[in-house]
Amino acid sequence: MRTRPLKVALLGCGVVGSEVARIMTTHADDLAARIGAPVELAGVAVRRPSKVREGIDPALVTTDATALVKRGDIDVVVEVIGGIEPARTLITTAFENGASVVSANKALLAQDGAALHAAAEQADKDLYYEAAVAGAIPLIRPLRESLAGDKVNRVLGIVNGTTNFILDKMDSTGAGYQEALDEATALGYAEADPTADVEGFDAAAKAAILAGIAFHTRVRLDDVYREGMTEVTAADFASAKQMGCTIKLLAICERAPDGGSVTARVHPAMIPLTHPLASVRGAYNAVFVESDAAGQLMFYGPGAGGSPTASAVLGDLVAVCRNRLSGTTGPGESAYAALPVSPMGDVVTRYHISLDVADKPGVLAQVATVFAEHDVSIDTVRQTGKGGEASLVVVTHRASDASLRGTVGALRKLDTVRGVASIMRVEGE
Amino acid sequence: MRTRPLKVALLGCGVVGSEVARIMTTHADDLAARIGAPVELAGVAVRRPSKVREGIDPALVTTDATALVKRGDIDVVVEVIGGIEPARTLITTAFENGASVVSANKALLAQDGAALHAAAEQADKDLYYEAAVAGAIPLIRPLRESLAGDKVNRVLGIVNGTTNFILDKMDSTGAGYQEALDEATALGYAEADPTADVEGFDAAAKAAILAGIAFHTRVRLDDVYREGMTEVTAADFASAKQMGCTIKLLAICERAPDGGSVTARVHPAMIPLTHPLASVRGAYNAVFVESDAAGQLMFYGPGAGGSPTASAVLGDLVAVCRNRLSGTTGPGESAYAALPVSPMGDVVTRYHISLDVADKPGVLAQVATVFAEHDVSIDTVRQTGKGGEASLVVVTHRASDASLRGTVGALRKLDTVRGVASIMRVEGE
Repeated sequence: MRTRPLKVALLGCGVVGSEVARIMTTHADDLAARIGAPVELAGVAVRRPSKVREGIDPALVTTDATALVKRGDIDVVVEVIGGIEPARTLITTAFENGASVVSANKALLAQDGAALHAAAEQADKDLYYEAAVAGAIPLIRPLRESLAGDKVNRVLGIVNGTTNFILDKMDSTGAGYQEALDEATALGYAEADPTADVEGFDAAAKAAILAGIAFHTRVRLDDVYREGMTEVTAADFASAKQMGCTIKLLAICERAPDGGSVTARVHPAMIPLTHPLASVRGAYNAVFVESDAAGQLMFYGPGAGGSPTASAVLGDLVAVCRNRLSGTTGPGESAYAALPVSPMGDVVTRYHISLDVADKPGVLAQVATVFAEHDVSIDTVRQTGKGGEASLVVVTHRASDASLRGTVGALRKLDTVRGVASIMRVEGE
Repeated sequence: MRTRPLKVALLGCGVVGSEVARIMTTHADDLAARIGAPVELAGVAVRRPSKVREGIDPALVTTDATALVKRGDIDVVVEVIGGIEPARTLITTAFENGASVVSANKALLAQDGAALHAAAEQADKDLYYEAAVAGAIPLIRPLRESLAGDKVNRVLGIVNGTTNFILDKMDSTGAGYQEALDEATALGYAEADPTADVEGFDAAAKAAILAGIAFHTRVRLDDVYREGMTEVTAADFASAKQMGCTIKLLAICERAPDGGSVTARVHPAMIPLTHPLASVRGAYNAVFVESDAAGQLMFYGPGAGGSPTASAVLGDLVAVCRNRLSGTTGPGESAYAALPVSPMGDVVTRYHISLDVADKPGVLAQVATVFAEHDVSIDTVRQTGKGGEASLVVVTHRASDASLRGTVGALRKLDTVRGVASIMRVEGE
């Protein structure tokens, strides 16, 4: 074994960073044996240097992250700051100064992944980021390496623990969205400002990363259709139950049936209770992958938290250190397929639509005519009426999002339709 | 991209081999893009050369596997023959002649993994074998790479699809073992001689491989305790249901609580219906991994079959080809921890024991005394009697296998105990 240690600079020492530092210390012998050389924490960049950090030598702590990544003797920079800047500049500076990079930064990778990969390739260094998607669950490596000889057609997953906790709570207790969110906040599953989670921004960043790897195509955050889950109601869950379904916030990356394009989207959807994703409880994450040869695979585990995310960071750290010792780099960006990313209007799926309608003869015929005119085929209709008012629940066969939007627009113009109470996609069949 | 192709020799062209060859042909462009060079099928060794093999150039087919691996221009040998010989000799010959090896051979790896890894290291070549455990499910790579910075404490899995199909059938229909086996055979899930599956040999080989990787320790097939599932009865399932459990054939690899030793075993066990493994249906496989930092992860998918196994083989083929192009090798055997493998007697778990006893006063006291004398603490007892005969179902707290065996031996000597109807371990809590 080499005795000269590999030097690691840690950018950020919050929930994840402090756990990375702790494991690097407590498991130093194991890491050395698995890498083939010891690893040494050479510096820790933080914002608040006065904070006491147990187990970290204060002499290593600095507020000057730029000077740390420019030192020139750093082998690997571990970036767990998050956000776009200064993380982006620090990572490119790290490459320019000969370091490899391990990052957990989903927002940055989804927005600027191509530029970061280019910087890594230019410097002939590694950029690894298993921790950016679904915490400790190995996903990037299985998609990028285990399935490298297969053709992935679909990635369907629960990739945000906060929203899964809220939806699971609504499902199991009948609570409304606000009540479930309040509980998630009280328990620390939701942040004070939950926007990034509940509006689907976090899941959309992960969808962009997963779609890019799965389809060997650059998919940016802007390419991902996004709908949050703040408007899911207890009534939606009741409707879902009647269909033998539950509701999850899903990230869905699909190859078009003809193989010529891909789509990526995040939105709440009904899925059958028999689908393995339906039983993913609390803040857990799970991702379903469908490929030509392997068939259906599922990866399940804790999607966030200091320790699980640190586990993923350290797995990458071992791989990157091994690559440096053998003078090579792992698989970089694979975007050779360069498939076009189709707009949401092209997505084909099923829909569950609740309409408030006038309770009089001929309404169903009117509504059915509108669906037919827009080429949306109806699977089932359920009509419940009471004294002048009625509700109509329509479940469609597969139709494009554009056709569905056209249908709904036309339905709103009917005198007999008083309102469209909810529209929800039905997935996982 | 390099234009000179990497040459692949395929040993075996059955269900898996023919699918590997097919995908190599139909996905040639994708494989080339992902590897960075084209791959070429340079030869196919078979037993029956006269058989027509669609899509394979007859000029490539040979019965002389030894000559093929000795050719000297082969980059990667893909071994999908199975069994110990000639596979073992062919693989070592391949290394001696400069090739890397991708194998799906669980029996050989479990029996002679150390020697094969040594031959690979001696030749400075890769030995990859993702397909040897749980078909298409990425397990070897996540354990060996994604969790390389973590400490795995337990691997608990359903790694044999045939037995899971049979047990699932017994559970859902109330069928007995023979009836369920007959259906599995008729549907092609069980072989004409099902011994390797139903007696747990196949699962034990996989347990040895998984334990070795998880604990960085050599674990041989002989180190794995093995009990088949041919004696599981409909009555056992009825008992399991009363406890809110089902029965699965599990492969369990555990680190002792003090970290100083490991165990590996295969046997049927009750697991709670709430455990994610309980809902693994039909011939699917799933493996639960528990580690210090990552927590609980699960990997789920098809555990066998031509296409899924070929997917795993091809993922390895891409990795091995990439390594050759960059003049390096991937992670080899990691056995530095060299932990002792403890015998079954040291395993600590819970037990569900059904006794046929005389229906008279004092029997429960006698039985309870025997448990106490052997330091096995009782959790619950259920007594059902009718006219002279009674049955006593005892569920214990955690106790060592040795203590439990001592208890059962002593129970059998009691006049009032007419027989021990069943003993089943309770796992997954």
